[in-house]
Amino acid sequence: MNRCYIKDLNNYYNKEVRVKAFVDNIRDLQYVQFVILRDSSGKVQVTIEKNEENKDLVEIVSNLTLESTVDVVGTLMENEKVKLNGMEILPSKIVVTTKSLPELPIDIKDKNKSLRETRLDYRFLDLRRDDNNLFFKCQTIVLHAMREYWVSKGFIEINSPKICAGVAESGAEVFKLDYFGEEASLAQSPQFYKQMAMAAGFDKVFEIAPAFRAEKSHTSYHATEIFMVDAEISWIDSVDDVMDMQEDWIKYVLNKLRDTYGKEIKETFNVEISNTDVKFPRITFDEAKRILKENFNYVSEKEDDFERKEEELLCKYVKEKYNSDFVFITKFPKSSRAFYHNIDENGYSNSYDLLYKGVEITTGAQREHRPDVLERQAIEKGIDPESIRFYIDFFKYGCPPHGGFGFGLARLMMKIFEFDNIREVTYLYRGPNRLTP
Amino acid sequence: MNRCYIKDLNNYYNKEVRVKAFVDNIRDLQYVQFVILRDSSGKVQVTIEKNEENKDLVEIVSNLTLESTVDVVGTLMENEKVKLNGMEILPSKIVVTTKSLPELPIDIKDKNKSLRETRLDYRFLDLRRDDNNLFFKCQTIVLHAMREYWVSKGFIEINSPKICAGVAESGAEVFKLDYFGEEASLAQSPQFYKQMAMAAGFDKVFEIAPAFRAEKSHTSYHATEIFMVDAEISWIDSVDDVMDMQEDWIKYVLNKLRDTYGKEIKETFNVEISNTDVKFPRITFDEAKRILKENFNYVSEKEDDFERKEEELLCKYVKEKYNSDFVFITKFPKSSRAFYHNIDENGYSNSYDLLYKGVEITTGAQREHRPDVLERQAIEKGIDPESIRFYIDFFKYGCPPHGGFGFGLARLMMKIFEFDNIREVTYLYRGPNRLTP
Repeated sequence: MNRCYIKDLNNYYNKEVRVKAFVDNIRDLQYVQFVILRDSSGKVQVTIEKNEENKDLVEIVSNLTLESTVDVVGTLMENEKVKLNGMEILPSKIVVTTKSLPELPIDIKDKNKSLRETRLDYRFLDLRRDDNNLFFKCQTIVLHAMREYWVSKGFIEINSPKICAGVAESGAEVFKLDYFGEEASLAQSPQFYKQMAMAAGFDKVFEIAPAFRAEKSHTSYHATEIFMVDAEISWIDSVDDVMDMQEDWIKYVLNKLRDTYGKEIKETFNVEISNTDVKFPRITFDEAKRILKENFNYVSEKEDDFERKEEELLCKYVKEKYNSDFVFITKFPKSSRAFYHNIDENGYSNSYDLLYKGVEITTGAQREHRPDVLERQAIEKGIDPESIRFYIDFFKYGCPPHGGFGFGLARLMMKIFEFDNIREVTYLYRGPNRLTP
Repeated sequence: MNRCYIKDLNNYYNKEVRVKAFVDNIRDLQYVQFVILRDSSGKVQVTIEKNEENKDLVEIVSNLTLESTVDVVGTLMENEKVKLNGMEILPSKIVVTTKSLPELPIDIKDKNKSLRETRLDYRFLDLRRDDNNLFFKCQTIVLHAMREYWVSKGFIEINSPKICAGVAESGAEVFKLDYFGEEASLAQSPQFYKQMAMAAGFDKVFEIAPAFRAEKSHTSYHATEIFMVDAEISWIDSVDDVMDMQEDWIKYVLNKLRDTYGKEIKETFNVEISNTDVKFPRITFDEAKRILKENFNYVSEKEDDFERKEEELLCKYVKEKYNSDFVFITKFPKSSRAFYHNIDENGYSNSYDLLYKGVEITTGAQREHRPDVLERQAIEKGIDPESIRFYIDFFKYGCPPHGGFGFGLARLMMKIFEFDNIREVTYLYRGPNRLTP
């Protein structure tokens, strides 16, 4: 007979059912045994009376260890005395498909009872917790909604190479590898190659893929291998077109997440998905600095960028004034931006940062598509144009004006779910001191 | 005013329209100029009469180069004399947004007029061809349909790390990199980590992501960086459950592709999407060898696997007998399979190959989830179990019986579109002699 997911059991009262699950809990009492089963959809109680008829089953349960896996066939009964969903399975057959060692190396019910590093060592057990299971179901919906939005609007998905000849776009450190005797590096972003798609006439593209950063950073926001979300669109009139797209897109994603798992997220994480009814405010960099000074009497030492504290204050300001968890900051001074950003006549970049709940989660920009200007801007930033000649060449045979954005998925997920550490929202975290499992 | 895609122009006869596009062709005649514009959706003619009123426009077009980009505003007229869609734009304004160099390094109308390697050097121009544009639109639909199927059935998407400590699952060569002084390698598949998701109770997962192979192979089927499609499902009763899922899934994908672009694919590539009405035949390895001998008098030297020729003949056989482009070959001798395949009581692996139009495109299997058996099988294959201890440990604390499949996307795309070389179906090909652009 076919396996039934636990969440669907309530369609089968007084019928025979088959459940395949982990052993979540065992209570072996004088006259009765209770086994709580857990599959990816929920939990259910199995009840075995200790009588002659159940002798074999009792024997099996007596030897059962927590977290073993079982294949159980039995009759589903309504029983209001059972706290767990008011139902129980009276089994006719229990097959132990795999047996767990009796001692688990981490506590999988309460994350606070084990050190984070130990939990990461046993991530495959750590992920068995209900909250982690829900989190990755939610991330699946988030990723799918992102792509769904883009595909429905005619974007092309690209899969750009992660092994590259030169060093990537910014000064950040890259991982080097030996490529049949040549030195190659791992892509720190798909920036150059998504712009190549614009030169190829692909019109609108996206890519969601790994990127690699050889930074010895141990903060709660950094990882050496991240999962990047990138989009790029052609024929824009200004960077506003990029912001319009990103805003509409992110609202679609959040609405989809709320519709699918809003209730479970509230119950498990005590988090409400952000309001998507208001337009994200757009504030220039200079205006933002003025707000920080006038409203918070805060003047930072960073003249061409923001400190983390300033991002927090700006988000506090727009939350109170506009009831928005998001804010676009536009027109950054060119000194703090990448060489490939388009610069306006006053020396400001036609770029933006999107802040969300106190943190910058995305940088977007109109790109410089004129090869001569691009080359000049590279030189101004101290980049040898010969080292990126292949990239500058993309723009020599016609290339539409274009722009886009990119960001690490983990940071967005951390803020949606209000997690404090990237290690908790990554399937398998990679950092300077962590290369396993 | 808003830009109009060329395919949507027929809604705007006798109205003002704005088109942003590449210059596909120019004919500058004595009394008139014709400019063919190309955007990602189609082509349209712009007609400029050489008169006093059009003086400025004529001047612009006289200096225009092919493949430049323009932003054109004008009136859309019906004109049955115009071969291209029976319409033309009479422009009031032409802005040249970017100017192409006058000489293109490759022919972008006819792929056969340039060497493949030169086309790959200028892939951003090569991709401007209509057939390439269509191909990547189709690939976008294929990828989206794959995920759509899985997400609708409750699969969780995982993003497993590509930088790994040990060497990966098979003997194949891996790229090594320096990871802050430690030796690390690039993942050649997500095999171990998708199985980890099964141990984590994720039930059903998928991943579509890059994988890396340090093989000095120059064939038309190999690349050093591939894009892998992987799925893994728990609680299977046998490998048949994996085949059932893959068959249903691949039919969903092909049907979606046919519904979306079937007509364009037929027109551009002269290819029909494979029939999805018949059940894919399932033939055991031994039976397949018997068929090869009896029907084709073909006996190869490979006793535990197939030569390419045998795969071709088997596909010919099932095409004639069952009208299927696909066939599952099951029960391979264990000597030709990976150590982590589950083995039956007769020494055959509970695994399969899926052949499609003459080529193996996927290997799938039930996995060995018992850690003691897994370790013994590793040793039998000459693998030091200590080198994969972290992987064997995934199965020590309960892990449901599971199985799955994985394959390179490019091979499937090659066969759907009947392309002869992986270089043509990859956004940016990477091989032993190609690391750029």
